[in-house]
Amino acid sequence: MSQSITLSIDAMGGDDAPNMVIDGIALARKALPNTRFIIFGRSGEVAPLLAQHAGLSDVCELRHTDDVVSADEKPGIALRSGRQSSMRLAINAVGDGEADGIVSAGNTGALMAMAKFVLKTLPGIDRPAIASLLPTLRGESVMLDLGANIQCDAENLVQFAVMGEVFARHVLHIEKPSIGILNVGTEVLKGNDSVKQAAAILSQTHLPIDFYGFVEGDGIGLGTVDVIVTDGFTGNIALKTVEGTAKLFAGGLKQELKGSVFGMIGALIAKPAIERFRTRFDPRRYNGAMFLGLGGICVKSHGGTDGLGFFHAIKVANELIVDKLNDGIKEDFARFNSEHHVLPDSTEAE
Amino acid sequence: MSQSITLSIDAMGGDDAPNMVIDGIALARKALPNTRFIIFGRSGEVAPLLAQHAGLSDVCELRHTDDVVSADEKPGIALRSGRQSSMRLAINAVGDGEADGIVSAGNTGALMAMAKFVLKTLPGIDRPAIASLLPTLRGESVMLDLGANIQCDAENLVQFAVMGEVFARHVLHIEKPSIGILNVGTEVLKGNDSVKQAAAILSQTHLPIDFYGFVEGDGIGLGTVDVIVTDGFTGNIALKTVEGTAKLFAGGLKQELKGSVFGMIGALIAKPAIERFRTRFDPRRYNGAMFLGLGGICVKSHGGTDGLGFFHAIKVANELIVDKLNDGIKEDFARFNSEHHVLPDSTEAE
Repeated sequence: MSQSITLSIDAMGGDDAPNMVIDGIALARKALPNTRFIIFGRSGEVAPLLAQHAGLSDVCELRHTDDVVSADEKPGIALRSGRQSSMRLAINAVGDGEADGIVSAGNTGALMAMAKFVLKTLPGIDRPAIASLLPTLRGESVMLDLGANIQCDAENLVQFAVMGEVFARHVLHIEKPSIGILNVGTEVLKGNDSVKQAAAILSQTHLPIDFYGFVEGDGIGLGTVDVIVTDGFTGNIALKTVEGTAKLFAGGLKQELKGSVFGMIGALIAKPAIERFRTRFDPRRYNGAMFLGLGGICVKSHGGTDGLGFFHAIKVANELIVDKLNDGIKEDFARFNSEHHVLPDSTEAE
Repeated sequence: MSQSITLSIDAMGGDDAPNMVIDGIALARKALPNTRFIIFGRSGEVAPLLAQHAGLSDVCELRHTDDVVSADEKPGIALRSGRQSSMRLAINAVGDGEADGIVSAGNTGALMAMAKFVLKTLPGIDRPAIASLLPTLRGESVMLDLGANIQCDAENLVQFAVMGEVFARHVLHIEKPSIGILNVGTEVLKGNDSVKQAAAILSQTHLPIDFYGFVEGDGIGLGTVDVIVTDGFTGNIALKTVEGTAKLFAGGLKQELKGSVFGMIGALIAKPAIERFRTRFDPRRYNGAMFLGLGGICVKSHGGTDGLGFFHAIKVANELIVDKLNDGIKEDFARFNSEHHVLPDSTEAE
């Protein structure tokens, strides 16, 4: 527990940066006393914010840079022209071994492109994936990919499954996590070729993996499996559909409760219960998407979050480091690649 | 309003068939006095149920068949060997002009395969799509495809957009419905080739279509557009993700309210408001997926629904007929196909 951890922070990414970034670090300082921070950004903006929190500068080192990657910059351009950006310098600190991981609330595509370029992928992994925890009726599940890879073949999905399994064991501390592939039905013959082939490979692997099979979209909220594997197109849309549905229901409930006197009185009396409900599903608690498969820990905070949300992203990075996620992924891929073979193309249609 | 409508009903599809089917027809008899029913199924099971509702047999004609398409039958096999099934005979009644539309809660794949075979697609439409209404913060939107087409090219998506637009005008009575394509981001360069090309075509068409552009997953619940266009893989997963998230939130709220005395008292006082909330988002109210693009009206009820849900599916079929949806689709496709050209492949990556 006393392992000392250094995180590099991109202070300039996110809608309310650097304010919410520094607020998040201030929260982290209390909750994670083992962590110190190297902060990259415009010192003219960041230094006054650090000074507002007594003692915060004791655990922070501020490094000035003027350059910032904008939210709508294309990844390729950010990679070429953003070498002095706060994002890039923060990633470099991990590449150089100065920091154990990096957290940014900036441009997702640019962050992934730069992190891949600087940190490289782990042996055996073709493409890193974006993963996130999601609340379920059973507790929490992890879903990946959430948007790094728009098109995925079976091999990519299988690699996501193995990475997700390691994550669930190391970070969620589930002894034998169950893994499902997101699909339009649960029968073996449903879906596109990628999911069918990936399911065939995972059913036959000799790795001690608990492969559940296919799960449908409603399995996400129900918590049918611990690890939900999908391509980045579907995963991104599913994740945001969860967010939108949450807003729809919260908004609809509020409208109905406020629409009548009894509704308002009932809500007032039930306020503590409603607050517990809100806290349980507070999206800020699930902030911090993990880039899995890179040669360094990289966590992406939601751009629109506040200090509490950014703190949760920091916490995620901290846990990935403490729980030695990347060592686990390396071990498993060494085993996995020595034993598994890709199946030939299946042309069987539904 | 006095237009007389005949619906053919597959009495044997669905978990609780034929019970819930006849319950649904009994509800429809009161709400839709202009409608009569030709019911296909096992008369030994169906006739006693009809007899339980006074006067119901006045608007129903029961036609006996023993054969039933099972829930896990593959579509191709059902098509070949299910020629005397209640599902197929009910579709034939539409094909023969005896009925104006068909409703079934049976096997979706088999229903689509049979309906396509018997009713054919409308001129200009390559593939029919499954569409459904969804509740949003603004009211209701229609989303398609929800699973008929696992892989879709740009041309398919464009056809879905035009069909969805006609639906929103004719059935939702929105004068100029907005149309969005579901994607992983709102910028023009995001997503796979199909969505990028479809967006390019819809941006340039001379049809008087209000093309909004891309919407992300959270746009579904927010009601960003009236018509959400997507491929059947993504659409099916998004739809079921909405359902699962709804269950997660309803379950979580219930747990917290029941977990404390104040929670229970508050919920009791606010009960009418909570009931209005439940009614507003009751999945049975959104039951009835429409098969758009076929040469006849075909509505698929959820297999797990009850009489109220099946009634809503009947109501959907009734509305599609009254509002002359297929005439609208035919007109628009005649105009559309005379003016639009598919763009060349775009290889531009994000």
